[in-house]
Amino acid sequence: MSGKLTVIGLGPGSAGQLTLEASEALQAADVVFGYGPYLERVPLRAGQRRQASDNREEIDRARRALTEAAEGASVAVVSGGDPGVFAMAAAICEALERGPGAWRDLDLAIVPGITGMLAVAARVGAPLGHDFCALSLSDNLKPWPVVEQRLQAAASAGFAIALYNPISRSRPWQLDRAFEILRTHLPANTPVVFGRAVGRIDERVRITTLATAQGSDADMATCIIVGSSDTRLVERPNKTALVYTPRSVGAFST
Amino acid sequence: MSGKLTVIGLGPGSAGQLTLEASEALQAADVVFGYGPYLERVPLRAGQRRQASDNREEIDRARRALTEAAEGASVAVVSGGDPGVFAMAAAICEALERGPGAWRDLDLAIVPGITGMLAVAARVGAPLGHDFCALSLSDNLKPWPVVEQRLQAAASAGFAIALYNPISRSRPWQLDRAFEILRTHLPANTPVVFGRAVGRIDERVRITTLATAQGSDADMATCIIVGSSDTRLVERPNKTALVYTPRSVGAFST
Repeated sequence: MSGKLTVIGLGPGSAGQLTLEASEALQAADVVFGYGPYLERVPLRAGQRRQASDNREEIDRARRALTEAAEGASVAVVSGGDPGVFAMAAAICEALERGPGAWRDLDLAIVPGITGMLAVAARVGAPLGHDFCALSLSDNLKPWPVVEQRLQAAASAGFAIALYNPISRSRPWQLDRAFEILRTHLPANTPVVFGRAVGRIDERVRITTLATAQGSDADMATCIIVGSSDTRLVERPNKTALVYTPRSVGAFST
Repeated sequence: MSGKLTVIGLGPGSAGQLTLEASEALQAADVVFGYGPYLERVPLRAGQRRQASDNREEIDRARRALTEAAEGASVAVVSGGDPGVFAMAAAICEALERGPGAWRDLDLAIVPGITGMLAVAARVGAPLGHDFCALSLSDNLKPWPVVEQRLQAAASAGFAIALYNPISRSRPWQLDRAFEILRTHLPANTPVVFGRAVGRIDERVRITTLATAQGSDADMATCIIVGSSDTRLVERPNKTALVYTPRSVGAFST
């Protein structure tokens, strides 16, 4: 089987946050599959085809990409951020596991990218500077009680928390409920960062506290970071505040 | 104050995993601070100085970098992987908070990079494809009981777990103890990935299970990913197995 499938992370948005390896892998592909808005970021070269699809059709997109690769094409599948974080790499693996045995012979490569939480964190300091977790708030793919249980476990154990897929038209109340749960485990002044479309022209980053954080401050393109009880806010007179989690637990408790 | 301090993520190792933004930021600096082996990866241009220091002198390195920037230089501080994940960005923020007030006027930027767990995950599939956490096993900066409590919380709540700083000469037993704790919460056949020096010439990636994982399989340059109870291993007859965590909780339970 001569085809090849490469799953490529585009990073959060700007061309500057793409790796060299990702650029080269994009160039090498015969056909590029992806969610429409991600594909629009990819410069098309002569002879290269695009296959755009909707955001919610990941398994179907994965199957079509695997099918083309099995027919001998050099296929790329793009994800925003990193393909391994709530994105296409898992969908490809799942479609491969459930698909024809011949797909297991395919040459499959995954090219990592800068995932949203790391780009947001970099804008404000180092809120993920110590132990942290990444949690999808979507209850399309897991029962909501599992989300609540994971929020409680993470906050009470002292992890900073990055929330992916915080809100959508069909999931309007989940983020406010998440803040409500986190308020029972963390101090009211725990820093919360809303980072939207980081690296893109419509970037918007806002720092607030858990007491005042509101679901309506986020949209689908937002990644939210909630600090741990160790996370610090450093005011700067002429600049945006810094938010960071010290490398040592209890560094400021004495 | 005219100086500038940029904290730059070099990614896991290969030049191909550096972003364009990181390359440009490196070029722009008058002086580059960092742990010796990371500095060796950075091509020096004419007129650029290097300030190498030991791995355990982060706060001291941060202070010296801030001091030079406050004197007007354009200073870069490099980290392997992402500077916001168990690395220099938090050290810089902490030194800045504890330092002279004038440091708060400095122009500070952080350039994210591909962090180790994402590079390791990409090599084997998508073990971090659903909720996950990143945990440092070092008890130099937090008491060991906190590490144990976080391991328990993360494993029992269903997070996949990336372990940073798993072992060192002065911390020889902690990783085996971590596996012991995880075995009480997770099935024996839970996939475990040892990824060493990914992207570098001496890269070594090994897939095993929680039942057979051993501390002696890791060294300081290893990042370890322990799956959740949902994580799947897909055998491929002529290729390395894939490890991935499905996007849906319970996707394979029926």
